[in-house]
Amino acid sequence: MNIKRSAQNPVIRIEDVAPSRPDFRVLGVFNAGVAQFRDEIILLLRIAEAPLSDRADEVLVPRLNEAGTDVLVERYDKTDPGYDFSDSRFIARDGQTVMLTSLSHLRVARSKDGIHFDVEPQPALFPEHALEAWGIEDPRVTQIGDIYYITYSSASARGVGAGLAETRDFRTFKRRGLMLAPENKDVMIFPDKINGKYYALHRPVPKSFGSPEMWIAESPDLDHWGNHRFLMGLSEQGWDSARMGGGAVPIRTERGWLALYHGADSKHRYCMGAVLLDLDNPAKVIARSRVPVLEPEAAYEVNGFFGKVVFSCGALLLDQTVRMYYGAADEVMAVADIPLEDIYNTLL
Amino acid sequence: MNIKRSAQNPVIRIEDVAPSRPDFRVLGVFNAGVAQFRDEIILLLRIAEAPLSDRADEVLVPRLNEAGTDVLVERYDKTDPGYDFSDSRFIARDGQTVMLTSLSHLRVARSKDGIHFDVEPQPALFPEHALEAWGIEDPRVTQIGDIYYITYSSASARGVGAGLAETRDFRTFKRRGLMLAPENKDVMIFPDKINGKYYALHRPVPKSFGSPEMWIAESPDLDHWGNHRFLMGLSEQGWDSARMGGGAVPIRTERGWLALYHGADSKHRYCMGAVLLDLDNPAKVIARSRVPVLEPEAAYEVNGFFGKVVFSCGALLLDQTVRMYYGAADEVMAVADIPLEDIYNTLL
Repeated sequence: MNIKRSAQNPVIRIEDVAPSRPDFRVLGVFNAGVAQFRDEIILLLRIAEAPLSDRADEVLVPRLNEAGTDVLVERYDKTDPGYDFSDSRFIARDGQTVMLTSLSHLRVARSKDGIHFDVEPQPALFPEHALEAWGIEDPRVTQIGDIYYITYSSASARGVGAGLAETRDFRTFKRRGLMLAPENKDVMIFPDKINGKYYALHRPVPKSFGSPEMWIAESPDLDHWGNHRFLMGLSEQGWDSARMGGGAVPIRTERGWLALYHGADSKHRYCMGAVLLDLDNPAKVIARSRVPVLEPEAAYEVNGFFGKVVFSCGALLLDQTVRMYYGAADEVMAVADIPLEDIYNTLL
Repeated sequence: MNIKRSAQNPVIRIEDVAPSRPDFRVLGVFNAGVAQFRDEIILLLRIAEAPLSDRADEVLVPRLNEAGTDVLVERYDKTDPGYDFSDSRFIARDGQTVMLTSLSHLRVARSKDGIHFDVEPQPALFPEHALEAWGIEDPRVTQIGDIYYITYSSASARGVGAGLAETRDFRTFKRRGLMLAPENKDVMIFPDKINGKYYALHRPVPKSFGSPEMWIAESPDLDHWGNHRFLMGLSEQGWDSARMGGGAVPIRTERGWLALYHGADSKHRYCMGAVLLDLDNPAKVIARSRVPVLEPEAAYEVNGFFGKVVFSCGALLLDQTVRMYYGAADEVMAVADIPLEDIYNTLL
């Protein structure tokens, strides 16, 4: 593999981002959707925040109030043995998540060269109703004509579903409702209609039985989705044996739709791999990575808010090279250039 | 409550149903969808079957093969301490369901009086592809014009999703694909378009957080669904505090859409309740039962394959009385007539 991580990595760090309010701090800037807009490369960043606190014996967690008008702060006692604080991402009790430790919103960053970004001082999309009360996360951006469609995880006490929004200019955004019900994440819309229909990859998480695996759905209008089909599942062992889901918006190549996806093993080590899907029938898997395309190896990938994670939500095809933008360790944004040929070589 | 359970209850019992093959036995005939077709009342029954076995130390479980062409039988050793056989409905290991103990298909029963039914000797819909490999369950039938739409649970190792089929005559059936991805059950389509859109109730089961609660979705064409909204959730305590989901297809009344739904407490005791939804905006709850409409009390409701269950998938409005068809104890079909006024009296 001839991966070139940018010498500027991480290209966006916590200190590059102003919190949305003075009593909050930024825990991470990661898992950004990517778009080419006029002469700019735009990242739609996920910004995770939590209230400032100077006490080691408490965790302050933010969530939206029921009316969607304000952010409430709840205090959890770290010395309470009834709670489990071992996963930095959430608070659990009796094995069940009771609250996330941060509230995420989406923020625009702009660049001329795709490496040096200016992060806007204000949120682009902030949680605004009950089904977003625990945050909006992991956006993917798909350009179709002049409109950029944004899918994102919509988290609340009701579960995590897939929200849809749109923009023409990355200044004003319009929500279009929940396109997939809980539990579903990692939704990305294909950039072209295929045989007259829109397609999207998605990743349901069933409770009673079944695993977090990749599915595909169709739509006549982007708002309503159906004909859900199973696309691909966990491997028996190895890097994508515990959970998986779509990553970057699929890229059209000569050999098929190239979809970079994430997989994790039972130790929560997240890598990126690739799958090729048939151009005319994206429900058909042509080939899939047997070894990861990118593994967490750099210091900023191994250490962070949640370590050993590389997680891409968007990539660009520059001639024969894929420029992959990815969240590293749930804390920073990074970029890597990977020759298309090297990605193909991971495929069986 | 002035509930009149039919004196003929159970109106369909195991011995009334021929197994689909001679080496299988019927474990239950229950949770039937209901339709009025010409001069007949039709029940679309769920028939659960398992292979015949004369050994007490084994459990034989059926599932469809990968190609969808044949039913395989797998043998589980009841003396193996690694498996948990305590729930009659499934086999578990390490707290996770590994296999259902029966394979369900759908079967037509016909009646002139709505009480005495003739059960057809052959399945109407039998599992036929990988996403139905563990069975098709709990149908709901909605008539729109001349077409009867059937939603059903489509179970497989990939989880339980919502299948859609249609028929004009209850003799030939056409599948229309998976309308909602796993994990989702208890889907019922409203019998009229409302403001130009189709609506359905559904019951996702999120894994990471969230509960089995009722949602509503919209569709332009019945195949593709979106604008998912949370409808109503578990009560703090009581009969519908652990899980809930839609039951009978909603009935139009003067006061609103009357949706009979099921709820269970932490001891898996399933009751039926009711909710009234706004006629013009069915996402708006007008009122909901604080006490159950029907509780498992009769012997055939308390004792059976899975006891203490009343579970309706369909009901008819006969003047001012609701005739509710329901599965009892996951084993037999029963009928109860309930005055509309008594149902209204349960609503807060």
